[in-house]
Amino acid sequence: MAQKPGIPKGTRDFSPEVVAKRQYIISTIKHHFETFGFQPIETPSFENSDTLMGKYGEEGDRLIFKILNSGDYLAKANEALLANKDSLKLTSQITEKALRYDLTVPFARYVVQHQNDIEFPFRRYQIQPVWRADRPQKGRFREFYQCDADVVGSKSLWQEVELVQLYDNVFSSLGLSGATIKINNRKVLSGIADVIGAKDKLIDFTVALDKLDKIGEDGVKKEMLEKGITAEAIAKVQPLFNFTGSISEKLEKLSDLLATSEEGMKGVEELRFICDTITEMGLDKSILDLDVTLARGLNYYTGAIFEVTAPKEVALGSIGGGGRYDDLTGIFGLKNMSGVGISFGLDRIYLVLEALNLFPETVTEATKALFINFGTTEALYSMKAITKLRTMGYKVELYPDAAKIGKQFQHADKRGIPYAVLTGEAEMESNQFTVKNLTTGAQKSVSLDELIQQLDS
Amino acid sequence: MAQKPGIPKGTRDFSPEVVAKRQYIISTIKHHFETFGFQPIETPSFENSDTLMGKYGEEGDRLIFKILNSGDYLAKANEALLANKDSLKLTSQITEKALRYDLTVPFARYVVQHQNDIEFPFRRYQIQPVWRADRPQKGRFREFYQCDADVVGSKSLWQEVELVQLYDNVFSSLGLSGATIKINNRKVLSGIADVIGAKDKLIDFTVALDKLDKIGEDGVKKEMLEKGITAEAIAKVQPLFNFTGSISEKLEKLSDLLATSEEGMKGVEELRFICDTITEMGLDKSILDLDVTLARGLNYYTGAIFEVTAPKEVALGSIGGGGRYDDLTGIFGLKNMSGVGISFGLDRIYLVLEALNLFPETVTEATKALFINFGTTEALYSMKAITKLRTMGYKVELYPDAAKIGKQFQHADKRGIPYAVLTGEAEMESNQFTVKNLTTGAQKSVSLDELIQQLDS
Repeated sequence: MAQKPGIPKGTRDFSPEVVAKRQYIISTIKHHFETFGFQPIETPSFENSDTLMGKYGEEGDRLIFKILNSGDYLAKANEALLANKDSLKLTSQITEKALRYDLTVPFARYVVQHQNDIEFPFRRYQIQPVWRADRPQKGRFREFYQCDADVVGSKSLWQEVELVQLYDNVFSSLGLSGATIKINNRKVLSGIADVIGAKDKLIDFTVALDKLDKIGEDGVKKEMLEKGITAEAIAKVQPLFNFTGSISEKLEKLSDLLATSEEGMKGVEELRFICDTITEMGLDKSILDLDVTLARGLNYYTGAIFEVTAPKEVALGSIGGGGRYDDLTGIFGLKNMSGVGISFGLDRIYLVLEALNLFPETVTEATKALFINFGTTEALYSMKAITKLRTMGYKVELYPDAAKIGKQFQHADKRGIPYAVLTGEAEMESNQFTVKNLTTGAQKSVSLDELIQQLDS
Repeated sequence: MAQKPGIPKGTRDFSPEVVAKRQYIISTIKHHFETFGFQPIETPSFENSDTLMGKYGEEGDRLIFKILNSGDYLAKANEALLANKDSLKLTSQITEKALRYDLTVPFARYVVQHQNDIEFPFRRYQIQPVWRADRPQKGRFREFYQCDADVVGSKSLWQEVELVQLYDNVFSSLGLSGATIKINNRKVLSGIADVIGAKDKLIDFTVALDKLDKIGEDGVKKEMLEKGITAEAIAKVQPLFNFTGSISEKLEKLSDLLATSEEGMKGVEELRFICDTITEMGLDKSILDLDVTLARGLNYYTGAIFEVTAPKEVALGSIGGGGRYDDLTGIFGLKNMSGVGISFGLDRIYLVLEALNLFPETVTEATKALFINFGTTEALYSMKAITKLRTMGYKVELYPDAAKIGKQFQHADKRGIPYAVLTGEAEMESNQFTVKNLTTGAQKSVSLDELIQQLDS
């Protein structure tokens, strides 16, 4: 019985045009990853559930896709759980594998498992799909690619400098101007918490402060008070409510503000090294900015925090992020292994390039010439030329059937193939080809060498 | 608590070296797919279970990885099934998605779903992982890549000709000589069944005949008799027991043998066109052979059947296969859509290239030069050169920490980096770099331009 075909919600089919555009972004990112010395690894699509569960919080556990055990998976399941329909507790009894939720935890697992074969510091990149059982919505999918570059095994701040440059190099190659690379430091956030005397209120504080543009200073302060941050504490960080100017001016303000916090001052120092060096070296097409409200993955990062936002005119938000985490591999038993890394948001970058019309036309260029099929003899003559052209790297095709010529031209047209090549008795006798430019309609008789020149033009 | 890290059986981590080698094979295959006019598509890793179940036989259904529904998946499950621990019947109640088992069924689904956007004949390629809950063993994995090229929408035999050429072109680029591209035709097999008067015994017949080399003519005939094929029937196909010679000689024999079978003669005719054309055009590094015992996926293919075996000296068996299927999309309701395609076995090809030492050394070449880190000032000087070199596409790195020089050299050595670049006060003053060849130990002072020349050499 015929089924109406479809795909699971939150997943996508990619047509040739879309694959070509995605590959263009991926190969650009890969190229720059490699010039920076990052090396590719790949990990399995599914991991043992133990490896993933408990690493992303309770919400994360819920969003991990679990794979049903094969065979008689209920044989050893607990009867009481089945009778009570206890989905949550039964899961670990009937599944032991789960789909990758991100690339960071598998990377940590990889480093620990292969630590004896790895030469540290280890720079790896990984470009693979991940899966999340999230509610699908515009721009959020259940299957999507992550493109991560991380260095593990050194605390050197040169790596943070390089990661900023890496973002800029990739965006430059993609022709993308005006992305903002926002930087912050976990230690600066801790310093702010020290100063306001409320470590446990840090998230409430940054969330409120982040709304400064929208609800104004009074609104932010009101929210902070509601969240239980004292007026006294708020007064202490008054400079953050007018936190503008150049990066060095901002660093000066922070330096004054956090003078009493040792950790905070360490963060300022780190930020200063990174920002001063980048200023000295210059960026091509991106803007570096210091944003003290930046707090993504607060419990995870221990030093630098990065987030990249698309140019304002496209309003597409974050296109990348990352940071330093001093205990990446501790969950798998390998201590003192500091890591720092960044991620590129492939889907968002795709939307940005599309919105700004930045995909080069050549990206989706496929077959260059269609040889019209007039029958077996002519097709054999054509196929000999086609074979030679393909060996030289040209993308050329024979229309497979000796169909009506109109139909064959229509096929070339619909496929966007720029040239048609016609071969009849006259051409075969003189060892020539008639090549027709399908845009202009111009056609001429050429030798194989001349045909090659035409395809090159 | 620290966990001992590991991965599910039948899956693999790929180190940078292995990824580089796999990518070399994949990009070679992709290049040739594209010169033949194949265009890439991608489909989701998981499909609706309905799309996959029932398409690969009972055994296939069992080997498909099912994904547990999210949330309270037991809520609507049948109590009796739970109480009886009926794993088989419960599956469809608690899972609605499943991991891709091959690329052919998703392709058929794609063609039907997007038929209005596709210009036929449609040449697509697809290189993505598939998953099977098979018992893992040497060379058989639960996650592995398939590399498929198919044309759908034309019955032209030129496509079979091209697919043979495509195999040859890929193997030539990989430097692989002596692969045998075996061809057969489903209609010839039907013809044989006609002649022996036993359609239902065809598989038994070909399986037995395939053992000719191992157990000899008498052994094969004994097995055939045991399987219920009559002595009379066996006598009728006596020429198949001495089925040697050139392809044209084989075709002559088949032509005599199958003279009474209309379908059989159609198969001979198809084979003759394909083989004659290939003979006329020539192959570069591969051998075409006609093998009447070739019957892979018998119920699936309707015309040509292909299988490629590795050169005999490596004894690694099949490295690819394919064929024509006249009703690819019928299962999803689109009739009369003939397809023909081939697949490359990435893992097997990898083993073959490894065994024959055919991977070019450059494939695993990563970072070209390590800049030794002598401290912040020197590192900044180095980093300016590094930034310029990277923009030009060179893979260069700064050692991130000002560690002991011996440790830094050791790092370059272990990573197989061919050059070290040293910059001290003298170099900075004269705007030079000291470049050291880590193989020969030779070192000299050079300008940035000269350094670039060195890296190019």
